Amino acid sequence: MSQPTAAVLVIGNEILSGRTQDANLAYLGQELSALGIRLVEARVIPDIEATIVATVNELRARVTYLFTTGGIGPTHDDITSECVAKAFGVPWTLNAEAHRILFEHYGAEKLNAARLRMATTPEGAILIDNPVSKAPGFQMGNVFVLAGIPKIAQAMFQSLKHRLSGGPALVSATVTAFVPEGTIAAGLGEVQAAYPALDVGSYPFQRDGRFGTQLVVRGTDKDAVRAAAEAIGRLVEGLGEPFLLEG
Amino acid sequence: MSQPTAAVLVIGNEILSGRTQDANLAYLGQELSALGIRLVEARVIPDIEATIVATVNELRARVTYLFTTGGIGPTHDDITSECVAKAFGVPWTLNAEAHRILFEHYGAEKLNAARLRMATTPEGAILIDNPVSKAPGFQMGNVFVLAGIPKIAQAMFQSLKHRLSGGPALVSATVTAFVPEGTIAAGLGEVQAAYPALDVGSYPFQRDGRFGTQLVVRGTDKDAVRAAAEAIGRLVEGLGEPFLLEG
Repeated sequence: MSQPTAAVLVIGNEILSGRTQDANLAYLGQELSALGIRLVEARVIPDIEATIVATVNELRARVTYLFTTGGIGPTHDDITSECVAKAFGVPWTLNAEAHRILFEHYGAEKLNAARLRMATTPEGAILIDNPVSKAPGFQMGNVFVLAGIPKIAQAMFQSLKHRLSGGPALVSATVTAFVPEGTIAAGLGEVQAAYPALDVGSYPFQRDGRFGTQLVVRGTDKDAVRAAAEAIGRLVEGLGEPFLLEG
Repeated sequence: MSQPTAAVLVIGNEILSGRTQDANLAYLGQELSALGIRLVEARVIPDIEATIVATVNELRARVTYLFTTGGIGPTHDDITSECVAKAFGVPWTLNAEAHRILFEHYGAEKLNAARLRMATTPEGAILIDNPVSKAPGFQMGNVFVLAGIPKIAQAMFQSLKHRLSGGPALVSATVTAFVPEGTIAAGLGEVQAAYPALDVGSYPFQRDGRFGTQLVVRGTDKDAVRAAAEAIGRLVEGLGEPFLLEG
């Protein structure tokens, strides 16, 4: 596996309590796949300093890129930025460029102490532009610190993605058929065995009272992905069912 | 914190690739909160045996209850059950009761080798009823192994939840106001400081072009939760804005 790897660290009590449905993981997973970067783990942790510091240090040592989401707003529960400074063992200081951005946006009167926290970063951080609400994210080493609000996290990812070195892009092909998983499982295992460099996944669904399966082939070799998907299509035909091949 | 704790382990390449949006974490977070069990971590990992075994062992040692989702179907990429057997160091064997359930459901002819995998569990496992599609989940020690499909995972959770010992239920109250986070942050920090046993969270939103914030108080002491929410309401009034208090 010569592809670069990534992890996503979702920070926030609201995700663990079920109050908020995370939407950043699926977005980042898709974007990273398209860049040829393999997302190998995601974690969701609460707003607890010791947990954030330890998890940032564990994950950043293990992957090419670590993305955090959440905890960079102006309130008392927004502690990601300080925690990343602690994880890197550097001071947490006012960032002149972030200060300028927020001063321009809020003006002197509204730029209170709480909002100034959003201009404070680990020393040496490189800012990540936030075209939605101005308060920037930042990069420290291989750690990219993004907002939790999906619209802002997505805009920040678009701002930073030119900094990432991808591998060969992951492509996929999907075969959809009204065949239950258990019926096609044996043949599918043979296709996976014949293409060990590809991932063959099987995802059952129910539609209009009928059981079906989506069979997804993923990998970096476009021709092999297509060939494996066609082999799966022939399996479905062998069961006397039609299929749809996409991608 | 005398509350029991839980972790959720989401197993599946499709979540990391962004193909599938996880929906089980939010559901389990809400259900566990209602039972007075604090969800302290969630992880998403790929269908890789060594990773699953190591993560199950790490998490089950750290929390009162570990819930896994995904990877218990009939196909080659469904390896959660074997991995849990390896994590516990026990054989992975045909479970007589699961066999009976699947035999009744599929009949002799359709109960092929792939489907028999769904009747195979770590030795000593206690089954979890699946009223949706029959193939059961199971419990090994403090580890509860659920399906990945949300409708099935949810039904399985309902089947097993009488086995869990909860603590005092977590209750919450929410104040919604068209006040930007940065404006109310200082006062909010004071409310949090006055109620250290409660979690005070701040979640900004944008609606009809206006910025607002939802301020959520959570804890086990219902009266304290209400009092803290009312204190936040007075903060909003002090800023000359109306507010909505729910819960």
